[in-house]
Amino acid sequence: MDLLSIKDPSFLKALSNKELEKLSQEIREFLIEKLSKTGGHIGPNLGVVELTIALHKCFNSPKDKILWDVGHQSYVHKILTGRADQFDTLRQYKGLCGFPKMVESEHDVWETGHSSTSLSAAMGMAIARDLKKEKSFIVPVIGDGALTGGMALEALNHIGHERKNMIVVLNDNEMSIAPNVGALHNVLGRLRTAGKYQWAKDELEYLLKKIPAVGGKLAATAERIKDSLKYLIVSGVFFEELGFTYLGPIDGHNYDALLENIAYAKKMDGPVLLHVITKKGKGYQPAENDTIGTWHGTGAYKIETGDFIKPVQSPPAWSKLVSETVRKIAREDERVVAITPAMPVGSKLEGFAGEFPERMYDVGIAEQHAATMAAGLATQKMKPFLAIYSTFLQRAYDQVVHDICRQNLNVFIGIDRAGLVGADGETHQGVFDIAFLRHVPNMVLMMPKDENEGQHLVHTALKYDDGPIAMRFPRGNGLGVPLDEELKEIPIGTWEVLKEGLDGAILTFGTTIPMAMKAAEILEKQGVSIRVINARFIKPIDEEMLLGLLDVDMPILTIEEAALQGGFGSSILEFASEKGYHHAEIDRLGIPDRFIEHGSVNELLNEIGLTTENVVNKLQTLARRKQKRA
Amino acid sequence: MDLLSIKDPSFLKALSNKELEKLSQEIREFLIEKLSKTGGHIGPNLGVVELTIALHKCFNSPKDKILWDVGHQSYVHKILTGRADQFDTLRQYKGLCGFPKMVESEHDVWETGHSSTSLSAAMGMAIARDLKKEKSFIVPVIGDGALTGGMALEALNHIGHERKNMIVVLNDNEMSIAPNVGALHNVLGRLRTAGKYQWAKDELEYLLKKIPAVGGKLAATAERIKDSLKYLIVSGVFFEELGFTYLGPIDGHNYDALLENIAYAKKMDGPVLLHVITKKGKGYQPAENDTIGTWHGTGAYKIETGDFIKPVQSPPAWSKLVSETVRKIAREDERVVAITPAMPVGSKLEGFAGEFPERMYDVGIAEQHAATMAAGLATQKMKPFLAIYSTFLQRAYDQVVHDICRQNLNVFIGIDRAGLVGADGETHQGVFDIAFLRHVPNMVLMMPKDENEGQHLVHTALKYDDGPIAMRFPRGNGLGVPLDEELKEIPIGTWEVLKEGLDGAILTFGTTIPMAMKAAEILEKQGVSIRVINARFIKPIDEEMLLGLLDVDMPILTIEEAALQGGFGSSILEFASEKGYHHAEIDRLGIPDRFIEHGSVNELLNEIGLTTENVVNKLQTLARRKQKRA
Repeated sequence: MDLLSIKDPSFLKALSNKELEKLSQEIREFLIEKLSKTGGHIGPNLGVVELTIALHKCFNSPKDKILWDVGHQSYVHKILTGRADQFDTLRQYKGLCGFPKMVESEHDVWETGHSSTSLSAAMGMAIARDLKKEKSFIVPVIGDGALTGGMALEALNHIGHERKNMIVVLNDNEMSIAPNVGALHNVLGRLRTAGKYQWAKDELEYLLKKIPAVGGKLAATAERIKDSLKYLIVSGVFFEELGFTYLGPIDGHNYDALLENIAYAKKMDGPVLLHVITKKGKGYQPAENDTIGTWHGTGAYKIETGDFIKPVQSPPAWSKLVSETVRKIAREDERVVAITPAMPVGSKLEGFAGEFPERMYDVGIAEQHAATMAAGLATQKMKPFLAIYSTFLQRAYDQVVHDICRQNLNVFIGIDRAGLVGADGETHQGVFDIAFLRHVPNMVLMMPKDENEGQHLVHTALKYDDGPIAMRFPRGNGLGVPLDEELKEIPIGTWEVLKEGLDGAILTFGTTIPMAMKAAEILEKQGVSIRVINARFIKPIDEEMLLGLLDVDMPILTIEEAALQGGFGSSILEFASEKGYHHAEIDRLGIPDRFIEHGSVNELLNEIGLTTENVVNKLQTLARRKQKRA
Repeated sequence: MDLLSIKDPSFLKALSNKELEKLSQEIREFLIEKLSKTGGHIGPNLGVVELTIALHKCFNSPKDKILWDVGHQSYVHKILTGRADQFDTLRQYKGLCGFPKMVESEHDVWETGHSSTSLSAAMGMAIARDLKKEKSFIVPVIGDGALTGGMALEALNHIGHERKNMIVVLNDNEMSIAPNVGALHNVLGRLRTAGKYQWAKDELEYLLKKIPAVGGKLAATAERIKDSLKYLIVSGVFFEELGFTYLGPIDGHNYDALLENIAYAKKMDGPVLLHVITKKGKGYQPAENDTIGTWHGTGAYKIETGDFIKPVQSPPAWSKLVSETVRKIAREDERVVAITPAMPVGSKLEGFAGEFPERMYDVGIAEQHAATMAAGLATQKMKPFLAIYSTFLQRAYDQVVHDICRQNLNVFIGIDRAGLVGADGETHQGVFDIAFLRHVPNMVLMMPKDENEGQHLVHTALKYDDGPIAMRFPRGNGLGVPLDEELKEIPIGTWEVLKEGLDGAILTFGTTIPMAMKAAEILEKQGVSIRVINARFIKPIDEEMLLGLLDVDMPILTIEEAALQGGFGSSILEFASEKGYHHAEIDRLGIPDRFIEHGSVNELLNEIGLTTENVVNKLQTLARRKQKRA
């Protein structure tokens, strides 16, 4: 059929299983083709084609509410709800979002991006439904990886207790982003293989009958044996213990199995856990063969070969630079232990893991546990390196505050994907980290200007032993500068003058330094001389250098690819006020007080006015004002 | 024995069970007597007397590491590690901390305050131990309530998977702070009663033998039956599924049982979960009889009667004012649903729960789930009221950012215990909320000047339907002002002039308003006229009123009982800079960049210079500077 003609999923009701299979094939071809140009989360979406179709056939969205945990697996859902025609713009500026989005469709009832939220949201919706005495099904779809996130477990615990009607679909692809970890993963593994014991149900009942009838104390025992054997039959003892009815495991690519079990689940009272086994990348060989998550989310690729069409990128990726520097240092310093919450590939820790398997811990999607485990290691004088994306560090805010910073423990946090990240959009921008870390006592926060300084700051962080220290670094690649052979320590709290100037100063760090340098060059030609300072320590600031500027009444412009409220620029304002420089002319550029959607980083920078042109304008105004005063 | 003479726990090794019982009695009497004067967490500590003694008898602290989750149950541990003589100063300024504290003793190997951190920390310690090839026991002690916190579940999942040697002591008092909730609670309940089936072990084996020997497919089935029956015997299938060896349930007040099981646990490989049943308040009738958590943490009391010796407090407690106002509104507006993460008593929601049991959700210690569940309710146009302490809201930072604010959902967050809280100290001060909420787009943040304005702001919050809105309010009681009969809406983003003045302005809110008024009075007598402004909207600020001050070059002093970095004062600096008022004289008073320990709120305010005297000084300086310029 013509996928572009789909307006809503109601047409599915009339289709036979055979027709559904044909539709699945068409959707797969559509996705493989479209994503080969735009990139996107191909693996997860190919895995849920049948599941998504089956859910939309069995339920009536949006009256029934289907919630996509994490949400990068919602492409099939988007096709079935009338958005196939927008896939050419997927994850592009003003284009189709890679995650559920309420403004796109009434079928997107919950927006996601971070994992493990769907069960809590579903619980809220179920409470609302019951209070309003409405009838509807609430169907969160959660992956096996997301299930290990603490808040998902909190929600399971609560839902099981309240026994709300809800059908939780566990989309178990035996691999979240990286191969999965955790005891729960083992539980699921046992359930998967338990399938083959289902045939034994009849035999079991036969055996049960062989147990002799007994009275008195033994009668109670025999009752418990039967209870116990029930677990054996239904298999999902773990979920049953939590108050769920367990159904599964179900072949997530077989319509007979899917439709039958969903129909059964709809008839049950209380919460049901539908354990569906799917294969990531199903139907596209290169993605099916993936074992480490390369095909989880990709850029463009050649359909025939599965080769990635990468932009030419000779400089090293920031994640790799950082992880490989940590690895190098770990060769000399056996106290170094690396920790990642489910991002060994994204954080480029494969090399470290290969060389130091016993000093590398992938804890699964469990940011809170990761941060506090790092703190525990630090109490024993180890040197934990917590590799975490800026946006995911938000999940561990309290643990950073109380367990790491309050105890002033020597944890090195590598804050990856800091600043704007582009195509993943709102939920993945790393723009709040400065604002949520700067007010935490004891925290040292850095950002390097290039990968050479980056390696030195990593070295600095692992030499530092006075408390928590964090380095933010952007998504993507470095500038291609040569790397020094020898690592060196950079004194904590020192900035660096990159260019001299007398009419004004720019304080900035990381990705916005090139913009500052370019603006200064432009102004130089206009006879305005601007000092450019690499404020590589965001906290503590270089008070001496800043006082030098304030003392000569130098106008200051701060630039940061981060939220303006409570950010780095604010710390300059705070310092000037504290020290009594009430007449300092300080202006700030950064990310305004709203959420920033998806698009290329350049498009987004343009949109929010973080441009060379704007920097030039701001500095001209500041310099003019200074001249007027002089 | 003389408890004051105890230097370390080594003396316990030589004591007989009879002597241990005598010691337990002495410790109980000591605690009941001391805490009757100082107040403190009496219930939890009376419950763990035998458990603490048994642990210190069986392990060698500090080589073996005992970690107290939450930590308010560490008093007995403090007595056994040489701190009995400091109990007169418990929770007082510069006195003994109510939680573990590394500077107090080498036996305090992990500092706590927030719940559910001990397992992650223990995992870090276990990894460090194994990498260093050291031998020691690591023993986190966690309550049944804390076990439901998401990060504890993340840690269980990881520990069970890694099979690290560790003895997790589950201190199950069948009641965390409030009566416990959640499916896990039901699991524990089943385990508790399962104890009586333990006698059946022999009978079970007898029955097992009755199952006829079979071959082929049935043999495999029979094997699985045996596996299944193993669960029946050991009972702790939930924990066994997660990779733990389950031991229990154990009577936590019986030395024979405790010592035998701990000895057994020490011999096992891999992680062990020791399920110990204790009774909160054990040995003190008023505390034993408590069913709702009144005796969890208390002020001073009369030993004989258990009557609390409260300071005379006629004004309503803030928590009660807020919760009762919500209750009143809920009578008219059936969309209102209250949510608490395990603090129904602390948040004074008993009245609400009694009147609207189906609209009140205590989700257990699960702040993340609570916040996102509130968001889920809001998507269905309900009016969730999330009652949460400022310090615990830190746990839900990401959920507030992404699930509530990013989706711009209409959730009302009642931020209780905002500002300094006093005796609970560092981990409970509510001083970061402004800094971690102000930079979040869409958030409205308020704080009332008194309980009458408080009730109007609650009304305002529940009338507001444009997104998230939060009201912070302090621990303790209101000012005793009369309450209006009619609730009214206060326009969002409007401040209020409390006192006119021309020489300078104070912008402040909440608890620091009386200090500002007093300072203004003092200055009035000196001929300096100060305007005092109730900045009840922390975000958005009253731009019009602020522009009025900036336009006339009025010196401004901001005062906040919250962290200065990124706080309210910074928002005033940011605004002045943005609008080009670079010559504005703005000074800020608030909480400096360090963690604030325990003590009375007044002592702490004194220590950090948040005093009337300092306000007067700051204003005198500002006014002098203005005169000089004029």
